[in-house]
Amino acid sequence: MQFQKVGKDYLINIDKDEKVVETLTRFCKENGIKNAKLSGIGAVKKTEIGAYDLPKKEYIKREYSEILELLSLEGNIALKDGEPFIHAHVVLSDHKMQTLGGHLFETTVGVAGEFFLREFDGNAFREFRPDIGLACMCLDKSFE
Amino acid sequence: MQFQKVGKDYLINIDKDEKVVETLTRFCKENGIKNAKLSGIGAVKKTEIGAYDLPKKEYIKREYSEILELLSLEGNIALKDGEPFIHAHVVLSDHKMQTLGGHLFETTVGVAGEFFLREFDGNAFREFRPDIGLACMCLDKSFE
Amino acid sequence: MQFQKVGKDYLINIDKDEKVVETLTRFCKENGIKNAKLSGIGAVKKTEIGAYDLPKKEYIKREYSEILELLSLEGNIALKDGEPFIHAHVVLSDHKMQTLGGHLFETTVGVAGEFFLREFDGNAFREFRPDIGLACMCLDKSFE
Repeated sequence: MQFQKVGKDYLINIDKDEKVVETLTRFCKENGIKNAKLSGIGAVKKTEIGAYDLPKKEYIKREYSEILELLSLEGNIALKDGEPFIHAHVVLSDHKMQTLGGHLFETTVGVAGEFFLREFDGNAFREFRPDIGLACMCLDKSFE
Repeated sequence: MQFQKVGKDYLINIDKDEKVVETLTRFCKENGIKNAKLSGIGAVKKTEIGAYDLPKKEYIKREYSEILELLSLEGNIALKDGEPFIHAHVVLSDHKMQTLGGHLFETTVGVAGEFFLREFDGNAFREFRPDIGLACMCLDKSFE
Repeated sequence: MQFQKVGKDYLINIDKDEKVVETLTRFCKENGIKNAKLSGIGAVKKTEIGAYDLPKKEYIKREYSEILELLSLEGNIALKDGEPFIHAHVVLSDHKMQTLGGHLFETTVGVAGEFFLREFDGNAFREFRPDIGLACMCLDKSFE
């Protein structure tokens, strides 16, 4: 992985055959990035995505081994159990320009992986909510 | 809705069963946010999206009651009739990872709604254009 | 094309019948923008997109003449042969809310084209990699 930092903005290039979520999570941990906005494009392979089944409180998961264009990765980084945790969703497309997508578990760069990370100097964290079955974002101010 | 503000960046979490466009529009009005970039992910329900039919100058609309993953919400906020107005497009996916999307009219958080809003200290506004049939963005500088 | 600049953030409105990639590339050249993050929405026509075939080292290309909603354009600008080069991926949808997408070669605004460009004061550039067959992003720091 290569990167360049200007202020709170990082431009990140993840190399072919590197895992995206694992690499970015490790990068955040080692660089003290606790909260951030994440976005990017590329072409990826060995992708596991999912959709949340709220009544069952579990993710439906699917894997795609082939290289797919990464049309959009959009997500955020917040603390979960004190460590930076990436929550990202992806839109992918195949060689017929047909799209698919879901909640991103992991993917590996197949051709290119170009991301922007913008650090957010906040204290956003995730806490498990039994009614949802997931660790949900907690922020310090309310608006009703 | 919960939020945290750092400089011009807001991290926003919209709660389950809260409307997204209505809540964010009200938030902008009450906080004097006139222009902004908006993006986010989540899982939503009761979603109304559309596609613009230029010859007929009207939106084709469809509603989806079920929970769908919100893979990408991307949009902007500019003044329309003097009030902040959200223009956003969404990409959604179902439990088979199949995607759909369009111009967002309204949606309600089904599981999670996590957004970034970056305030833009400009004076962008929308003005009705008869040839288009929509209120189009007006900006102060031209480039040809 | 109209625009407004606040700090490093540009809000850009590309007019009906203007080309998106050509116009934004020219704007970057004339304004000395070497590196940037790019995102946006709208409704476009005459769109050429593609998917990269790594074994053949060439893009599979498709053209769509009709107006499609631009649900997401996400990309970056880096130097290629010393000039600003846009790398962007798009998600599009038709009047049935069905989606398609890919690597963007060119598209023309059909109804609206609203973009944010955030300048990144870096020196990211692209260099041809024979093993990939594409000009890949080069950044000044490594992380392993």
